[in-house]
Order: sequence, then C-alpha cells, then structure tokens
Amino acid sequence: MTTSPEFEHPIKAYGYAARDTSGILSPLTFSRRATGDKDVRFKVLYCGICHSDLHFVRNDWRSTSYPAIPGHEIVGVVTEVGSNVEKFKIGDKVGVGCLLGSCRSCQSCASDYEQYCLKPVFPFGVPNFDGTQTYGGYSDHMVSDEHFVLRWPENLPLDSGAPLLCAGITTYSSLRYFGLDKPGTKVGVVGLGGLGHVAVKMAKAFGAEVTVFSTTSAKEQDAIDGLKADHFINSKDQHQMEAARGRLDGIIDTVSGDHPIAPLLNALTPHGKLVLVGAPESPLEVAAFSLIMGRKTIAGSIIGGIKETQEMLDFAAEHGIIADIEIIPIDYVNTAMKRLLKSDVRYRFVIDVGNSIKAE
Amino acid sequence: MTTSPEFEHPIKAYGYAARDTSGILSPLTFSRRATGDKDVRFKVLYCGICHSDLHFVRNDWRSTSYPAIPGHEIVGVVTEVGSNVEKFKIGDKVGVGCLLGSCRSCQSCASDYEQYCLKPVFPFGVPNFDGTQTYGGYSDHMVSDEHFVLRWPENLPLDSGAPLLCAGITTYSSLRYFGLDKPGTKVGVVGLGGLGHVAVKMAKAFGAEVTVFSTTSAKEQDAIDGLKADHFINSKDQHQMEAARGRLDGIIDTVSGDHPIAPLLNALTPHGKLVLVGAPESPLEVAAFSLIMGRKTIAGSIIGGIKETQEMLDFAAEHGIIADIEIIPIDYVNTAMKRLLKSDVRYRFVIDVGNSIKAE
Repeated sequence: MTTSPEFEHPIKAYGYAARDTSGILSPLTFSRRATGDKDVRFKVLYCGICHSDLHFVRNDWRSTSYPAIPGHEIVGVVTEVGSNVEKFKIGDKVGVGCLLGSCRSCQSCASDYEQYCLKPVFPFGVPNFDGTQTYGGYSDHMVSDEHFVLRWPENLPLDSGAPLLCAGITTYSSLRYFGLDKPGTKVGVVGLGGLGHVAVKMAKAFGAEVTVFSTTSAKEQDAIDGLKADHFINSKDQHQMEAARGRLDGIIDTVSGDHPIAPLLNALTPHGKLVLVGAPESPLEVAAFSLIMGRKTIAGSIIGGIKETQEMLDFAAEHGIIADIEIIPIDYVNTAMKRLLKSDVRYRFVIDVGNSIKAE
Repeated sequence: MTTSPEFEHPIKAYGYAARDTSGILSPLTFSRRATGDKDVRFKVLYCGICHSDLHFVRNDWRSTSYPAIPGHEIVGVVTEVGSNVEKFKIGDKVGVGCLLGSCRSCQSCASDYEQYCLKPVFPFGVPNFDGTQTYGGYSDHMVSDEHFVLRWPENLPLDSGAPLLCAGITTYSSLRYFGLDKPGTKVGVVGLGGLGHVAVKMAKAFGAEVTVFSTTSAKEQDAIDGLKADHFINSKDQHQMEAARGRLDGIIDTVSGDHPIAPLLNALTPHGKLVLVGAPESPLEVAAFSLIMGRKTIAGSIIGGIKETQEMLDFAAEHGIIADIEIIPIDYVNTAMKRLLKSDVRYRFVIDVGNSIKAE
C-alpha cells in the first residue's frame, strides 16, 4: 500500500513537485513529520536552483520517485525546536544543504565527512530512515535533525548566500582538501556557471591566482572585471590552451557536459591536481602517461561535511562571498529551469519561497 | 655529420646494443666521456632488466635512436673520481637508476623531484646535455655527475638490490607520496611482477595490510607464503572483486597491459587513491561519478628523486628488502627478453655484467 504524500505524516506541507519525467513542476500538498526531540523545523525563505535539480526532476539518474520536490540550497527561519535541541532556538536563521541525514557511525561520519557516508539522506528524493520519501526546499517548510542544520552567519545575506550550501561548499571543500587554498597557488576553474563563479570567488579569497577556462568568450569580462579572476582562457582556442601548459597547481572542473580532459592535464604543473565537481555523462578518456609523467592526479569531490559547511559559511561571511543571483518567484520555476538548461542565468536562480509560495 | 659511437668520446666502452626495432641485442664497442670534475666513473657489476628496456629496444615509444643500449638499474664499484667529487672515492659501491641528469634549476629539481624535471637525462637513449646519446648499464662501465650517483648501503646485496633502483623507488615513492606508508593502512597491489613483488615488500615493511590482485591464480602461494601478503584476489573473479568493495585506502597498479579500472576504484574506501605506475597503452575509461562519490583519486607516479632514492636504498637495507631475481650472463639477454615478454621470470632478471661482459 502506498500512502499519499498528503497523509504520510501529521504536518501539512506545500511545495512544487514534478510528477513525471517531463520535469514540469506544479503545486503539491504533502506532509512532513512531527518535530522530534532533536529536530528543527523552519520556514523556508529562499531556495537556490542547482543544475542537479534539473537532472533530478527529469529522472536523468534513473533514481527519481514521483512526486519529486527538488531543492537543496535551503535557508529559512526556525519556527519550532524539539525538546533536546541544543544549537538552535525559534527565530534563528538557518540553512540546510545537500545532507539531511547520514548513518552517524561509519568511518566517514566519524571523520566529519558525512558526504561520503554510504547511507546518506539527501533532502530530495531518497528514502529517509523511516522509509518515507524526502522532499526538498521548493516548499513552505523543512524539518531536520539539528546535526544537519547550519547556523546562518549574521551578516551573510539569506538570498545570495543560499547557493553556498551546494555551490559554495563543493568548491570550498575541493580547494581545501586538495591543498589549493594557499596564497599564491595557481588555480584553474573550468566553466563559469553556478559552481564556477563561486569557485573563482573562493579561490580568490584564499589568495590564489585564478585562471578561468570557458568556451564562451563573452564571459571574459565577467571573469576578469566581475569576479576578479587573473586570467581568462577560451578553452576552444588551442593556442591559448597550449600557452597554459604546465602552469597550474590545480584545476576545479565544474563542467558536467562531455569535454576533453587531456588539455586540462597538460595545463597542470608536476604534482598538479584536476578535481572534477561536475559529472560528465560519458566516461573520461585518460592516458596513463599523462598522469605518470608529472605525478598528476584526477580526483572527484562532492559538497562537504556538516562541520566544514559551517566553516565555509563563516568564511564566506567574513570574506563577503555570495553568489551572483537572479531572484524569482516560485511560479517562475519552470521558465527558470528552461533557461538554466541553456545556461541563460548569471549565475544562479534563487527562489523567493517565503514571499511567493502559498498553499492553495 | 654523425660521429660513430666508438669515436664520439675519448674513453672506450663496451656493451650490448639493439641496432633496430627487432630489439635483438649484440655486442657494441662505443665510447664514454672523460671523467669531469664532478664525475664518478664506475665499473658495472650488475644491471637489472626492467620491462621498459623491452619497450625501449623495440622502439615502442617511437623515441629510440639506434644503436641503443638499455639498462637503468645499475650497480658497480667506483674506479675514478673527478677533482671536485665530494661524496665518493675509488672502491665505493654505487648505483645509478633512471636519472643521469636533470636541469638542476626548475621547481621540481629544487624540490628534490628531479624525476619530474622537464629536461631529464635518462641513462639510455636520450640526448645528454652535450648532445650525445646516452648508453645504459648493459655495458662495462658508466660515468655520471656525482649528484645522480647513489651510495650503496653496506649490507644491501649488489645483485638482488639492483632492481630497487627502478622497481624499488617507483613503489616506495608512490606509497610515501600518497600517504600509504602508515602502519595498518590497507594497500592493494595490482600485478605481481617486477614492480608488484617489490611493492608488496615495501608496503609490508611500512606495516600495511596488503592485498594482491592478480589474474594468475598460481601466484597466490607466492603472494601469501613468499611475499607475506595478507590477502590475494583473482581479479578475473567478479565475486572476489565485489567482496573487496570499499576496503582499500590505496592501490598501487603496476600493470602495463590494458585492464579495467572501475573494479579497482570500487575497491577503494572514500578518499582512496589508485596510483598507476604501469602505463597501459589504451586510454583508461573513467566514470566521473566513480571519483566524485567518495572523493577518490587516480594518479600516476614514476620513480623518485635522487634524495628519496638514497632514502629508499637505506630503508631497504634496514628492512632486508631485495628483489627476487634470476641472475644471468650478458649473452643470455636476448633469451631473457623473450621470457620477460611472457612474464616468465620470478620476478626480475639481473645481468651479472661484471663477470660476463668482455670486450671482444
């Protein structure tokens, strides 16, 4: 027996859900669990639209259950706390990113790497520990164990800060873990979209010398004047790519479309690191020699643990790092998704959930 | 005008050279430079046969100039030193590995990573700084700047120690650089040949728990009883491979034939590292997701710098690490090459140059 999302839990909720692989979102009344002892309930004010939301609602990864509510860059204000909640009180500004739960007992969880737990609970479209589906932040409110709730820094804007919960931590954690967070480090950023533009800001805040690789020449001005990148390379231009040979200590590759990897490996110094944070669909073709000669690395990375995400938010607040956003009402979301598919946004849509979502 | 190898330099030398892509070696009288101020000249006593010697003499990498004398696992005894040589005297036991020179001024050289210098001089088949060809250790004597000469530890056998100059440092440096040198670390070694069997010994000496992956079941006894590996996995057996999922902190992959990478990435823990020290000819196919989910790394590595090679020799002497070898006279070299091609050796041929090479 399948329980209707509306009657699964005691607390009524309201959001925008996809019903099928068309990915078209429309209003849905569903429900959320009661506030448990360690739970924080909060009213959603803003939610970023990440490119992976698109994949999720269209079932590109063949794992989506419908109805499906996306959204994992969620900020809001606490409305209720459980009796054993220690870190939050009603009225606090908070955030929830890509992690809504994890096993809390494996080696990864014990090391504050909950993102690599083998039993993660994402805020969208996976079974929660009680077996019910999770529903994301394109909705009026959220409920989460306090461990997975982030304290929102006082001077960090709620709207333009929201995308940091995915784009911010993904790039921050990659730069930190792979040692690309030292002043003077030569860092490349491939792709100037939602992730890429935040990667540039993070790397600059660490004091890196940043080179942006993009196939869109028109983004040069944005990169240099807007984001204060030091260099811009049109990655379609073989001469420019060749001139970059052996120059970079590390590259954060944010592109999720298929693209050649060899020229990026060429651009690395010995011991350089190419870190994938976008996931192209086709397998990468990697010549072993291109790694062996120069002891180069290709790695992947995804978001960050809860402790590091808090650290990143505090770092962003301290350095004035926010995403460049376009704020939209919830009923614009399907248009936004279409525009996102064409990369027609600089650089992140953020839904003004608090002011535009209303139970019908 | 091409000068004959015999008259290029003032000092007569004698070795075994390939004349063409058949790779067949036959005696050659050639010449070596006079002993410079910083040079060490030594009589070659033993020289290991590395799998890459095969590629070199057959011009598999399309960079071989003939006549070509291979050999880069060279040990011997000093017969002459230049006036400014500080570290060696006549009678000292010494070794020369894969590095006969480097630019001495780039970032890699300044960091004791001469192996990643962009202008390395190998002891075989590349132009030396004076423009003449280098000739390897399948020859009666060598001459080298003292910087690239290793001090041979007193209690390290000359014959079975020779392969450490390539196989030893390649595996030692990989384990050290990628943090797989800690007691209790779970290390996989793929392929049980010249490199692989030394990798197992090195990893065991570091205190690692070692799993050997091989497609040859017959090697299980060698791995467990002979090399003291902790586990053996037949990498053709999908059940065994599946059972290894998520178990290893790192893998040293020594196989230079084409083989699937995905099952090896599966065997890694989150943050695990797959380090290639063999170079398959076809590009590897790597799914980005397999790196991103678990922040896994694929890297390559080759030999080590001079300082680290000395450190490795001292470590090997301290821990009694030698290669398992079959000693052969120089006139067996063509048969040995044929057997090597069929992996018919456990695990390294070493030429007894000192006792078997004689100018005709």
